[in-house]
Amino acid sequence: MTVAMIGTWRMAYEGLTEGLNQLKAGGHSGDAIETAIKMVEDYPFFKSVGYGGLPNAEGLVEMDSAFMDGDSFAVGAVAGIKDIKNPISVARHLSNHHFNSFLVGAGATEYAVLNGFEVKGMLTERAKKIWQKRKVEIQTKNLSPYDGHDTVGMVSLDAQGSMSVGTSTSGLFMKKPGRTGDSALVGDGFYCDSEIGGAAATGLGEDIMKGCLCYEIVRLMGTGLTPQQACDQAVYPFVEKLKKRYGKAGEFSLIALDKAGNWGVATNVEFTFAAGDGEHGAKIMMATPGEAGTTKIEPITPAWLAAYEKRIKAPID
Amino acid sequence: MTVAMIGTWRMAYEGLTEGLNQLKAGGHSGDAIETAIKMVEDYPFFKSVGYGGLPNAEGLVEMDSAFMDGDSFAVGAVAGIKDIKNPISVARHLSNHHFNSFLVGAGATEYAVLNGFEVKGMLTERAKKIWQKRKVEIQTKNLSPYDGHDTVGMVSLDAQGSMSVGTSTSGLFMKKPGRTGDSALVGDGFYCDSEIGGAAATGLGEDIMKGCLCYEIVRLMGTGLTPQQACDQAVYPFVEKLKKRYGKAGEFSLIALDKAGNWGVATNVEFTFAAGDGEHGAKIMMATPGEAGTTKIEPITPAWLAAYEKRIKAPID
Repeated sequence: MTVAMIGTWRMAYEGLTEGLNQLKAGGHSGDAIETAIKMVEDYPFFKSVGYGGLPNAEGLVEMDSAFMDGDSFAVGAVAGIKDIKNPISVARHLSNHHFNSFLVGAGATEYAVLNGFEVKGMLTERAKKIWQKRKVEIQTKNLSPYDGHDTVGMVSLDAQGSMSVGTSTSGLFMKKPGRTGDSALVGDGFYCDSEIGGAAATGLGEDIMKGCLCYEIVRLMGTGLTPQQACDQAVYPFVEKLKKRYGKAGEFSLIALDKAGNWGVATNVEFTFAAGDGEHGAKIMMATPGEAGTTKIEPITPAWLAAYEKRIKAPID
Repeated sequence: MTVAMIGTWRMAYEGLTEGLNQLKAGGHSGDAIETAIKMVEDYPFFKSVGYGGLPNAEGLVEMDSAFMDGDSFAVGAVAGIKDIKNPISVARHLSNHHFNSFLVGAGATEYAVLNGFEVKGMLTERAKKIWQKRKVEIQTKNLSPYDGHDTVGMVSLDAQGSMSVGTSTSGLFMKKPGRTGDSALVGDGFYCDSEIGGAAATGLGEDIMKGCLCYEIVRLMGTGLTPQQACDQAVYPFVEKLKKRYGKAGEFSLIALDKAGNWGVATNVEFTFAAGDGEHGAKIMMATPGEAGTTKIEPITPAWLAAYEKRIKAPID
């Protein structure tokens, strides 16, 4: 059986490559997810996940993460966890419990500490500088403070046909303390059923959760749609519905993988992602909204990648 | 146009009656929900919601609540909020914000305090005694600590055709600090679309969230099913699927109301609820699992009501 993985944003690539290697060597879909997302959490230059993630309005890094096992529907999640190196590992650990599998705030942090998860100051000097600069900009230019909310979400399929999904994020930059989005919410930010497929979301959590989009994508795949058809049909009509009913719609980007290893993506913004399977290694691609409720997918250009690399490491003045 | 409301458990009755009166007088569906749920939160003898709610393992009352406007899909939610008299009012207030509309833990409590919501010690002497007694039982009899998790969830329809849903709970008795269930999670513990209908859940949140059941019930009503058909088709097959895939299933009770004021219920336990419309006042009924994936609904007996009244006020020895 084929193995496959898909992950949100350029930042998923290195972890996804390593996860795919584990899957090719016979590893479990859940291990691949945890390995891959930990790598994203650990890399200091990804500013919306784990170490180096941008802080809340008070300057503190609060993180959300979830894990779902597509065989059993077991879910573990944390929201507003602080000072823990790998929220995805806490979320996965919690998925082994029938009770108390979703912990928020100080309770989540205390649980992680009591259970031996590595404690780490998650605010980098770089993130602190970006936060300080932004605070001044907001005050002097009367800007909306909210910008930047990129969750890493990944779906994996292993050689035994088991599927898993995981998410991790430091959430909306400059959020109010305690704010959580869709990333820890089952059906909203992620969903997985090994007999069908899995999905994960990134974008403005407050709007994504209004549509329960990950559950809907998996449900549509279960009716026989391809992951691409399911993403297109779930996401674009809902974005239009939200504009009509709510008056506006934030950024939405969704990924999906089915049990055969086929993937799909839908987005209302410029959205990079990584995907690969046992035959073809991981690749970074660019998705943009296409015509008539479709998605345009292109290879990423070396120029884009070089500019990205430069941007994430650019000095903060 | 007709007005209607449905709410989970016997405890919904008085609030629902008041909410229904507001709706009959031309009130908004959201106001009716807030009024009704506040009454449940305020009543000290309901031991799973608001004041008098049973505490977590540390003896602290942590509450979850959510509100959804079925016209706009606007959602507000809090999880793990403490010392606030009416979590439903905080949730509804948050639903007016495009960003930071779901707050957890200390951030939720601080937000409520800063915005003038009434602060109140939510642990009653009675709840404290029940907690102390339970702690001893757990230690001496080696019991599973987790028992009791009744969310009040209500759906309302007003004369303008607007629908709203709200939930409020102190969560699983003896939960770990920070534990949250389905009640604050969109699609899992509640969902509402005024063009279709709304749904709310009560039971073991950790299992309800695995199925995204409120979204699914609303979706099924949108395909033309009655609320009763939608509840039956969403809930019973999922309970079976969960037993097969997860190995067990906790308690599930779901309610739904459609835009015409028809309601439905599904449950895998003995489940009381209240419902009424503009023509017929609120009534308390009893639902139990029927044959072949159906639900049996009967009037509540005076004997049951009398025993309930006695039970919730019985001295704690």
